[in-house]
Amino acid sequence: MIKKFDFDKFKSPYGKAKRTELGESLAKLQRLVKSKKVPVLIIIDGWESSGKGYVLNDLIRELDPRSYKVSVFEKPKDEEKERSFLWRFWSKIPKKGDIAIYDRSFYYKVMSQLNIEPDELKRDIKDISSIEKQLIDDGTIIIKYFLHIKEKTQKDRIHELREHKYSEFMVTHRDIEQNDYYEDFCNHFDNILKLSSFKYSRWNIISGENLKTASKAILGTTIDLIQEGLERLEAKGDNCREYIRKYEVKARPLNNVDLSLTIKQDYYESKLKKLQKEAQKVAYKLYTKGIPGLIVFEGMDASGKGGAIQRLTGYMDPRGYCVIPTSAPDETERQYHYLWRFYRDFPAKGNITIFDRSWYGRVLVERIEGFADVREWDRAYEEINHMEKHLHNFGTFIIKFLIYIDKDEQLRRFKDREKESDKAYKITSEDWRNREKWDSYIEAMNEMLVRTDTEYAPWIIVEGQDKKYARIKVLQEFIKHAKSYLD
Amino acid sequence: MIKKFDFDKFKSPYGKAKRTELGESLAKLQRLVKSKKVPVLIIIDGWESSGKGYVLNDLIRELDPRSYKVSVFEKPKDEEKERSFLWRFWSKIPKKGDIAIYDRSFYYKVMSQLNIEPDELKRDIKDISSIEKQLIDDGTIIIKYFLHIKEKTQKDRIHELREHKYSEFMVTHRDIEQNDYYEDFCNHFDNILKLSSFKYSRWNIISGENLKTASKAILGTTIDLIQEGLERLEAKGDNCREYIRKYEVKARPLNNVDLSLTIKQDYYESKLKKLQKEAQKVAYKLYTKGIPGLIVFEGMDASGKGGAIQRLTGYMDPRGYCVIPTSAPDETERQYHYLWRFYRDFPAKGNITIFDRSWYGRVLVERIEGFADVREWDRAYEEINHMEKHLHNFGTFIIKFLIYIDKDEQLRRFKDREKESDKAYKITSEDWRNREKWDSYIEAMNEMLVRTDTEYAPWIIVEGQDKKYARIKVLQEFIKHAKSYLD
Repeated sequence: MIKKFDFDKFKSPYGKAKRTELGESLAKLQRLVKSKKVPVLIIIDGWESSGKGYVLNDLIRELDPRSYKVSVFEKPKDEEKERSFLWRFWSKIPKKGDIAIYDRSFYYKVMSQLNIEPDELKRDIKDISSIEKQLIDDGTIIIKYFLHIKEKTQKDRIHELREHKYSEFMVTHRDIEQNDYYEDFCNHFDNILKLSSFKYSRWNIISGENLKTASKAILGTTIDLIQEGLERLEAKGDNCREYIRKYEVKARPLNNVDLSLTIKQDYYESKLKKLQKEAQKVAYKLYTKGIPGLIVFEGMDASGKGGAIQRLTGYMDPRGYCVIPTSAPDETERQYHYLWRFYRDFPAKGNITIFDRSWYGRVLVERIEGFADVREWDRAYEEINHMEKHLHNFGTFIIKFLIYIDKDEQLRRFKDREKESDKAYKITSEDWRNREKWDSYIEAMNEMLVRTDTEYAPWIIVEGQDKKYARIKVLQEFIKHAKSYLD
Repeated sequence: MIKKFDFDKFKSPYGKAKRTELGESLAKLQRLVKSKKVPVLIIIDGWESSGKGYVLNDLIRELDPRSYKVSVFEKPKDEEKERSFLWRFWSKIPKKGDIAIYDRSFYYKVMSQLNIEPDELKRDIKDISSIEKQLIDDGTIIIKYFLHIKEKTQKDRIHELREHKYSEFMVTHRDIEQNDYYEDFCNHFDNILKLSSFKYSRWNIISGENLKTASKAILGTTIDLIQEGLERLEAKGDNCREYIRKYEVKARPLNNVDLSLTIKQDYYESKLKKLQKEAQKVAYKLYTKGIPGLIVFEGMDASGKGGAIQRLTGYMDPRGYCVIPTSAPDETERQYHYLWRFYRDFPAKGNITIFDRSWYGRVLVERIEGFADVREWDRAYEEINHMEKHLHNFGTFIIKFLIYIDKDEQLRRFKDREKESDKAYKITSEDWRNREKWDSYIEAMNEMLVRTDTEYAPWIIVEGQDKKYARIKVLQEFIKHAKSYLD
């Protein structure tokens, strides 16, 4: 990619165009993108002092500043260091119709580590390829630039920056390190670029030797690639009817659940507090070891998720965990990829986040109600597995509970709740509507259990008919699985 | 408050109640608060090692973890250090029906600074009193605890923590410093507590000598104060009809605007780029000096806000500014105090945030459409002034532009836009509806100009009939005002 790059041969086909004209064409495209609600992500990466700031300035000059956002990624900040390396990028993905421009990108971590282990590099690239694929599948146009310069040019620019009072602070040890080990970094970058030039998000190598030329090249290429992207999206729309699912039902885990399991009141009372205190200790140890914990609860309405969560956290230090109740995405959230809103709440090192319903809504309610089309929810299983794998790679402890009750039990609980005046608000007409789709939910839950039960993020089916039994089981399973992370 | 506190006389009226019973009563109240959609904020502050964690744990044990959130405030993190001291607290205020519990609070900064200047203390307390008042006016119940312990007790507890491997890391230099200068801190805290025990958010001093007693005292007091708060809110609801506004129209600044002002095309062209480059330099200097900049644009639909913003930022480094287009609050945002969503985007040191419409929507569209009732929008002027003052105290440079056009000009622009196919999406039926309320908007804008034009956050009325004139004026005024911050 860049190792054998011939700087002298770099010619941009846009060399003769006027910059302003290119800028105005892009502004026109921006309005088109806005009206078509297509998210666009432009990544500007490259050597230190290669002129990223310069080309970025030129790129946006004619754009409407209300619908693009520039994000600069420097050394991870306190909060960012506490999360997986992709976390900070998720929060800045473009919403529908917006253009997000990244100065540095997903590749920040791997590019900075000159001596990264091959396995770690492979793993990180896989995580990145997965986020890029997901965004593209979701209709995002991704355009990636790498600004390439010669060793000598970099040296001169660093020298020049250091000479001036106003720009001296812009030179960091990273600039100098890169220049000192230019050849090593060149090999390193070349390797990364090769590994990550994916079909719909390939790298565009731009010579940063002459910044005016670079700038026009980037403007022109951006115009071409946005147009190409829009055409691809349109073609995709036309193909929509042909989709055939490949999933074959081979197992229905919920068929084998023994709903007769119960425990006696006195056994419950003798056990509960002990287990809660143990859960407290385990949570505390996760905290001291800096292990983030992610606990998911799914289950039909009135299956007892809330009660189980309350018993689970009963003795935990509330400063170390957080419960996130998930409902339908709001107007803002609907503007983004469906995983965006969950990333926001993922736990920092040592903290536990408990999701009361979660991203699995994609393959449950959104599948059943048709909020996601079949292509979308059918690929979500893999997307979710990738995301959980990424969190696992960061060291996150993940456990997922599905609390299962039968239809009669749900009816009993609905009726009980309606009687208790201060819990009546918990039952809405939506709950009754969902109930009518019971069988579809069971089918969807079965598929979810089969396709997303992984070693790194296992599903635990909890027999929920007896609330006490369910609560004890949740506590026991949490303790058991968390302990395996502590050894 | 605490200086003459008699530890021996501290008796909680709840001493005889069972902790579990208190906990369950609170859980019941939590459900009531949820159904009434009342936000509750509980602050637990106090000495280091006074047992904040202990009482906090006891406080939430029986609560439904899905509708409370615990926030721990420690030493400000990277992002927080870049903002005014209240910023991080705003993001954690409770939404309607939720209970937010703060471990440390708004008072973190002033309590930590033993040698704070009296003026700074007074200023900070004023800022805090303003946020507490605003939240209370908005229907929030605020309950504040200060956990007080003896010098000897603190010393013993610190000693005990240090003895154990698992808790040693919990002792910081702050604990030790507090204990070394116990008497000084005692005077300091006493002073702060006296200054900040406001009518509806007074301090409750709790002895932390015996943690079980403290815990019950806090549980019981919380129950009482939530009930008291709910009653107050109900009484307030009954009084709603009696409100009489005090504002008297003395000036209508928009009457004096000269809409005939224009400039010639060639003058515009010769000036524009020069001013843009100067604006770029000014922005860069704000950046190097670490001054945050806040620029607000208001104006009727089609008054040219977007175009003016684009010209203003034309040459600025996009990595240093951000444009936030404001529309109606979404479902999540409506769950919070109306200023909550704006705080999120306030600039870090050295950055500029440009709001295309803003919190002034409270006294414009929300006033006119009745989304806010008269009490709400009538007190908003003062709330906004307080907020801007707080940002100013942090060193923020603030300038607000109102672009003014007349009704005929708007009609012309609407029609022009409808003709331009790629701008047609900019005109919606809502724009036509707003137009019908033209006179109400003018009235509301006049009042806004009179009541929120301050030295620290001035309004600039921009004659917008001639777009070129408006753009040049915005650039000139920005440069002039920003420069006054650079001298």
